[in-house]
Amino acid sequence: MFSGDDAAVLALPPAGRLLLAIDLVVEGVHFDLALGSLADAGWKAISVNASDIAAMGGRPLHVVAGVSAPEDTDLDALADGMVEACAAHGIALVGGDLSGGDRLVVSAAITGTCDGRDPVLRSGAGVDDVIWVSGPLGAAAAGLHLLQSHHGATGAESEGEQRLIGAYRRPLARVEEGRAAARAGATAMIDISDGLSKDLDHIATQSGVGLRLGAVPVAGGATLEQALGGGEDYELVFTAPEGSPVLETFEAAGLPPPVRIGVCSADASERSVEGRRLEISGWEHTFRG
Amino acid sequence: MFSGDDAAVLALPPAGRLLLAIDLVVEGVHFDLALGSLADAGWKAISVNASDIAAMGGRPLHVVAGVSAPEDTDLDALADGMVEACAAHGIALVGGDLSGGDRLVVSAAITGTCDGRDPVLRSGAGVDDVIWVSGPLGAAAAGLHLLQSHHGATGAESEGEQRLIGAYRRPLARVEEGRAAARAGATAMIDISDGLSKDLDHIATQSGVGLRLGAVPVAGGATLEQALGGGEDYELVFTAPEGSPVLETFEAAGLPPPVRIGVCSADASERSVEGRRLEISGWEHTFRG
Repeated sequence: MFSGDDAAVLALPPAGRLLLAIDLVVEGVHFDLALGSLADAGWKAISVNASDIAAMGGRPLHVVAGVSAPEDTDLDALADGMVEACAAHGIALVGGDLSGGDRLVVSAAITGTCDGRDPVLRSGAGVDDVIWVSGPLGAAAAGLHLLQSHHGATGAESEGEQRLIGAYRRPLARVEEGRAAARAGATAMIDISDGLSKDLDHIATQSGVGLRLGAVPVAGGATLEQALGGGEDYELVFTAPEGSPVLETFEAAGLPPPVRIGVCSADASERSVEGRRLEISGWEHTFRG
Repeated sequence: MFSGDDAAVLALPPAGRLLLAIDLVVEGVHFDLALGSLADAGWKAISVNASDIAAMGGRPLHVVAGVSAPEDTDLDALADGMVEACAAHGIALVGGDLSGGDRLVVSAAITGTCDGRDPVLRSGAGVDDVIWVSGPLGAAAAGLHLLQSHHGATGAESEGEQRLIGAYRRPLARVEEGRAAARAGATAMIDISDGLSKDLDHIATQSGVGLRLGAVPVAGGATLEQALGGGEDYELVFTAPEGSPVLETFEAAGLPPPVRIGVCSADASERSVEGRRLEISGWEHTFRG
């Protein structure tokens, strides 16, 4: 698959800046092989990285992957999931490193480009900016809950349940949504990996604004608690000044409409949802005690 | 330390190609915390990546690091070692990811540039090319042997023994040596991470040439076996046509002279050292059975 050299040689787009991120997924922390396959783990290692690029308003380009795996690991199955996720996101898998280890860890680093546009940071939200989310939340948390209550998939899941499980096992980075948000004038953006309240809190803290949320869109089959605190949806949450052409830009790109969920307030300590205090909770990313 | 965004934003040199590599170091496989410190582990995670860039004839630019660590890990000590190694190699540490896990795994991805020159691959060696090594070998293997025989450092090591232990614990990527080799016309290059015979075998196999080695320089305090089969020296081995200005280029750069150790032969199956068969052995990179 790879050139076999010590490093991959990348041809870069002409724009002079590159995005670079790394994420690792750890068995027992980010995935449980009783609840998903090795291919799902490989998929997730790629898509969480692609989501980091999407959250900057960028387009993913290249991935290198490092795998530490016990001897009896089916590396082909793991690689299949990685290759499928790269194909789904238009990413070139250009190199890797393989090592032994007594627990499976998949690390991947990714490059991306904003095609000459400024990347969208977490720190740029302004007072009175509108807060948008790219889609309904909580599907992955609901899917995980289903899997955990039956110690895996039973094969008897309804279509709706399968969709929730798929959202958990095979998340798709919202690359086109992130680019549309950037074009529409997004001032800050983050992907929802740990839960809406926790990730949005990063934007508020780094931007020095408060959060005043209204109704939040909940995925069919999920609870409000899962929508607010559940991780791994990989929807994007972003801010943009009132009047920015957010809906128009998404529509022109053929994307489902994002949902307006609140505003950034001048009181930097405010964290509220529908008039109540917003609890900043989120996934601890662990399957063990 | 980092911007806190989902991806680092890199300013790139004008040359249009970028090197990208990933390497991971795993407790119990690549390091043993009884034989070195957490800071040493952090150092190694960076330097092995820098060595991948050096082996292409490149100069390292940026690193992102992903750490999976048990809860009680002294992350400051680990980070200190990473920061020290980045400083020693002129690398900018631009981002990272931290996760739980029951065994320490440090993954790092690195970018580099060849400043417009073609990268040196493993596949370019030609018949009759001379084989060079950037310095004497076996020091890291001898240092590891010392540490293993006393279950760690005793504090009573001689200066020579301390040097061997330092070669194992704090390897330095041969970045300037790799760049000098590239300027001198190197046709193939690799860093010695698994052992000279094993790594040189990659060049021979990927280039379709044989290996005919003469005397190999052995580091003071190391054995010939450690020089041929011991890993983690991170010296570079490279090939260049007879008559290439290798010694002159290294001298002009103020570097110690590399050592000529053999030639690439036309018989692609040949693997010989001083007239005997060269055993292709190397480090398995494991401390456990």
